[in-house]
Amino acid sequence: MIEIAVFGAGRIGRIHADNVLRHPQARLRYVVDPDLEAAERLAVALGAEALQEPEAALADSGVSAVVIASPTPTHVDLLLAAARAGKAILCEKPIDLDLRRVDEALDQLDKAQVPFMVGFNRRFDPSFAQLKAELARGVIGRVEMVTVTSRDPSPPQRSYLERSGGLFRDMMIHDLDMARWLLGEEPVSVFATASVLVDHSAAEVGDVDSAVAVLKTASGTMATITNSRRASYGYDQRVEVHGSQGMLQAKNHEQSSVVRWTAEGVSHATPPAFFLQRYEAAYAAELNHFVAAVAEDEGPCLVGPHDGRQALVLAEAALRSVATGEVVDVRGFQRG
Amino acid sequence: MIEIAVFGAGRIGRIHADNVLRHPQARLRYVVDPDLEAAERLAVALGAEALQEPEAALADSGVSAVVIASPTPTHVDLLLAAARAGKAILCEKPIDLDLRRVDEALDQLDKAQVPFMVGFNRRFDPSFAQLKAELARGVIGRVEMVTVTSRDPSPPQRSYLERSGGLFRDMMIHDLDMARWLLGEEPVSVFATASVLVDHSAAEVGDVDSAVAVLKTASGTMATITNSRRASYGYDQRVEVHGSQGMLQAKNHEQSSVVRWTAEGVSHATPPAFFLQRYEAAYAAELNHFVAAVAEDEGPCLVGPHDGRQALVLAEAALRSVATGEVVDVRGFQRG
Amino acid sequence: MIEIAVFGAGRIGRIHADNVLRHPQARLRYVVDPDLEAAERLAVALGAEALQEPEAALADSGVSAVVIASPTPTHVDLLLAAARAGKAILCEKPIDLDLRRVDEALDQLDKAQVPFMVGFNRRFDPSFAQLKAELARGVIGRVEMVTVTSRDPSPPQRSYLERSGGLFRDMMIHDLDMARWLLGEEPVSVFATASVLVDHSAAEVGDVDSAVAVLKTASGTMATITNSRRASYGYDQRVEVHGSQGMLQAKNHEQSSVVRWTAEGVSHATPPAFFLQRYEAAYAAELNHFVAAVAEDEGPCLVGPHDGRQALVLAEAALRSVATGEVVDVRGFQRG
Amino acid sequence: MIEIAVFGAGRIGRIHADNVLRHPQARLRYVVDPDLEAAERLAVALGAEALQEPEAALADSGVSAVVIASPTPTHVDLLLAAARAGKAILCEKPIDLDLRRVDEALDQLDKAQVPFMVGFNRRFDPSFAQLKAELARGVIGRVEMVTVTSRDPSPPQRSYLERSGGLFRDMMIHDLDMARWLLGEEPVSVFATASVLVDHSAAEVGDVDSAVAVLKTASGTMATITNSRRASYGYDQRVEVHGSQGMLQAKNHEQSSVVRWTAEGVSHATPPAFFLQRYEAAYAAELNHFVAAVAEDEGPCLVGPHDGRQALVLAEAALRSVATGEVVDVRGFQRG
Repeated sequence: MIEIAVFGAGRIGRIHADNVLRHPQARLRYVVDPDLEAAERLAVALGAEALQEPEAALADSGVSAVVIASPTPTHVDLLLAAARAGKAILCEKPIDLDLRRVDEALDQLDKAQVPFMVGFNRRFDPSFAQLKAELARGVIGRVEMVTVTSRDPSPPQRSYLERSGGLFRDMMIHDLDMARWLLGEEPVSVFATASVLVDHSAAEVGDVDSAVAVLKTASGTMATITNSRRASYGYDQRVEVHGSQGMLQAKNHEQSSVVRWTAEGVSHATPPAFFLQRYEAAYAAELNHFVAAVAEDEGPCLVGPHDGRQALVLAEAALRSVATGEVVDVRGFQRG
Repeated sequence: MIEIAVFGAGRIGRIHADNVLRHPQARLRYVVDPDLEAAERLAVALGAEALQEPEAALADSGVSAVVIASPTPTHVDLLLAAARAGKAILCEKPIDLDLRRVDEALDQLDKAQVPFMVGFNRRFDPSFAQLKAELARGVIGRVEMVTVTSRDPSPPQRSYLERSGGLFRDMMIHDLDMARWLLGEEPVSVFATASVLVDHSAAEVGDVDSAVAVLKTASGTMATITNSRRASYGYDQRVEVHGSQGMLQAKNHEQSSVVRWTAEGVSHATPPAFFLQRYEAAYAAELNHFVAAVAEDEGPCLVGPHDGRQALVLAEAALRSVATGEVVDVRGFQRG
Repeated sequence: MIEIAVFGAGRIGRIHADNVLRHPQARLRYVVDPDLEAAERLAVALGAEALQEPEAALADSGVSAVVIASPTPTHVDLLLAAARAGKAILCEKPIDLDLRRVDEALDQLDKAQVPFMVGFNRRFDPSFAQLKAELARGVIGRVEMVTVTSRDPSPPQRSYLERSGGLFRDMMIHDLDMARWLLGEEPVSVFATASVLVDHSAAEVGDVDSAVAVLKTASGTMATITNSRRASYGYDQRVEVHGSQGMLQAKNHEQSSVVRWTAEGVSHATPPAFFLQRYEAAYAAELNHFVAAVAEDEGPCLVGPHDGRQALVLAEAALRSVATGEVVDVRGFQRG
Repeated sequence: MIEIAVFGAGRIGRIHADNVLRHPQARLRYVVDPDLEAAERLAVALGAEALQEPEAALADSGVSAVVIASPTPTHVDLLLAAARAGKAILCEKPIDLDLRRVDEALDQLDKAQVPFMVGFNRRFDPSFAQLKAELARGVIGRVEMVTVTSRDPSPPQRSYLERSGGLFRDMMIHDLDMARWLLGEEPVSVFATASVLVDHSAAEVGDVDSAVAVLKTASGTMATITNSRRASYGYDQRVEVHGSQGMLQAKNHEQSSVVRWTAEGVSHATPPAFFLQRYEAAYAAELNHFVAAVAEDEGPCLVGPHDGRQALVLAEAALRSVATGEVVDVRGFQRG
């Protein structure tokens, strides 16, 4: 039985805590949040102990793993403290918005040698995972072109936008990781362009809400990503991979299997409302993977520190491309 | 080049005449209709000669084939005359509404030995034909259960109903032929039940507008047919065959490939409006088959006199089942 | 907090016990099974107490509800004992295979006035429930024709068949309930026909493995049900309702959203393997409904004793129709 | 009745000649090809006159329109001669591979004032045309992001590649026109990148076979185009438009409506093999539009000389972007 402390009693913390509770080999020991009331609400419902500060949880030798689901600016401090305490770490993305801080954290993680995993939950979505497995089995031959379509249902509030790090670091970072993973080869260049089409709040905080990025690898394979902060029909999450012997798509999920045939047309259900619904199974599978890596010593986690860094590097390169109108060489962002 | 006379300048006659025109090996020689004006309108547009009476066309030795697309009560007289004149015959379904008259006609056809084909056009629909070919190739093993769904877009006028022969002989006859064809084995019993749910005109003329039939063969395989005279979403034409190793479906066609994603749902186009649109390709393929059978002496037509008789027998059995509430043994309807 | 005892530690008992565990207002108190080891395995994993005999659980005044998931022959005795003890009851279908025993049980339930629900789980499947809600909202006008397609992935073992009560009472009973529910009106007549096409074991025990039933109501609306004990592509579970203003379908679910495009065709995932996967959400929603009915005194359960009886009556009528080749009047099966 | 001369007796010329033949208001008068035998084969089959040289056809005052379907290098000379002769012109794309020659031709066309149409046939595809009509009706609000996926079934022969002008001018030019049309606003910048992934022949002639382009308009709306010279599953032709109130997609067509359910999966038909099959209806609708514009003086053709020029400009800009790795300002390619 793996005892786990969850840092952060917000929306994502709650998902992870729930999944820990349901895992037959894991036990939720602590919920930690500076907002003690929030920590208590969650802890009581799930039979865990609430803490306001992380120290006691990290000092508890019974705890062998932590889940960091607190606000992004706290990630690095928490993961460094957890690494020093020898805990296995599942850290929500991004590790940090500042690439230098990420690199410093990675240096420490290299030394600590604790299991470390970044929360790119989409890799664990059953449909995307199956698509990746079929790629690996060669169902469509060599990968040539990856297409990632990712649209949120509605733009976040201005207060969220202000501390989000911007569309590329906050939203597209998931898609950049997805594209890297599906390409199966490191992108060497990035082009990106973006606009404010949805919501003027984005412009007011210096952000964008609609964007396209094109990645290219050394072998010439390419990936395109399209993002929008608003899709009136729900959370639009699709990937497509074209290869030398065919194409694989992961379609949007439907909220029900009902089809309506009337004089107006033939209609079926829209996609799930947002990520909590769409990726419910992905979050559970992600935790299963993490617990297995910790409990059964199954080797390194599928999504390691380098993956966390590289998605951020691609986001930085995309931002620079938007600014210059030029293709940006990713190899310039060396870990130093 | 096969010269062809088309009898009947109505809706169906026009389709056949058009297909004759487009066929590289066929030539439209006559359009024959007691309504000479109608015959002339069609003949002039298509470069043929209009006639009010059939005699001259049948006496023309250059004409080697006729298409009978006139009202049902005229079918038998025309086909007997054509058979006597040694013409190949494509006759619209049903041969006649009266089984005894059909049997008399079949006796004459047997003697005349002319190529004869009944216009069960759906067998030539590319989707249904492909499904049948896959059955024949054993894609789903042995046939066990056939399901035919067939709904017209809207009920016909009362005047049509009065001389139609009723839903079973007029509408379900197509589906009974489809079920026989897909079962690949002669049905030995029929159960049917029916209601007036759509339009009181049906009740007023002693007809029904909604019906279900269940056929069974000697080996125990079954077919179900559901009919309605009205489908608000268009012409509903689907078949499904369940077999020992899988299932084949022929879905409704879509009028376009456009999909709309909005907050109200995800919608696409309704099926084609009615049979002229849905079976456009089927009518052309049917004529191709007929011309090939005549021109190239390719052996008997795919849909011969026995097929025309047997569909009517099943319709008669269904009517008797509706009247008695009992399963009706089809083998009681012996020819002769 | 509602304390619940689950009778039966088999496949279905386990599902219900799991759902009790996950329900925020319910607590799993006892798992009861004559096979004490099986009861203990399940109870230990879920933090409940194992019992070999029901008496102690029924005597425990803290327990307010029971779930009866034991073999069918034990249902009536258990539900009568539970009713005498004043417990709310969720009983798996069928109540019993013998209509007289069902009627006796219903008499006692009438007197006991405890909340009682039959486990027709499919009514709680989110897709079917949404379809029913849209019917109720009038999305397709008046119901005219219901079509239920229900095929198991593979035939059960001969030992199961021997005590199953036969296809109509064991398998089609679910579809008969579904048809009744969707028709929204009591069927007054039943026709059925059946064959052994899949597996000779069925014939050896006097059963069938392929069947069609046609139901009809007083107003003339109809339902057709097709059953097979084997579908090589997985568990086939579809319903379709045609109405005066359109059609509603609940399609099969897909095991993933991946689509493969290759030279061989365009393919996607088969349906879920069997009922445990397909109806996972339905079982949870069913328990939610039961707990709400018990805890919040929300009035009678959606699926009451009459529903349990009526599905069995339709199965009996279908069996009689198979035997006689005639339509059977359901109104002959009066209670009492 | 409009008399028409078709220049070019190859694959495309044949399509146009066939459609002229079927058009009730058009008559095929001449088929012109330097390969007189080819011209004769086509002319004889369709009841027209074969010519080796264009002069006689252009001198025939009965001919009011020409279709230019000859090799690209001959387009400008033919269209200038036809314009001088006062004929209406339907010219296959591209007008020419050299932008200066296009501009010279446009100057002459401006003076001649004859009806002129470029053969961007895809605008007339019923599905794409419906999608465009729904955009115009505001079904999804303002356009924000256009996605065009266009993959040929297999790479052309090296001899074709050598004189094709390259992927951007030969293949993507269709998609660039589609993107412009759907954006409804002139692109002001282009980014493109490309690779040789499919076939080394492309590299040998200095061409590419896989490409991505990103267009942007002054208002910030964007379009992405992905191209490949090979799709093993058939001709992949899809468009998608995301707008402020939803999304419209035009899916690939299916070659039949048959669906196969087996243990291996659920599969349906691949898309049509190539453009002759996929765009059969589009070519017919294109000719209908052209004939209506000529015969009924219905005003300018939907796809005028500026559209032909602008697609080529975008292709040139894409080529320059591939060479420089920079976004290219389209406004630099001014006419004149």
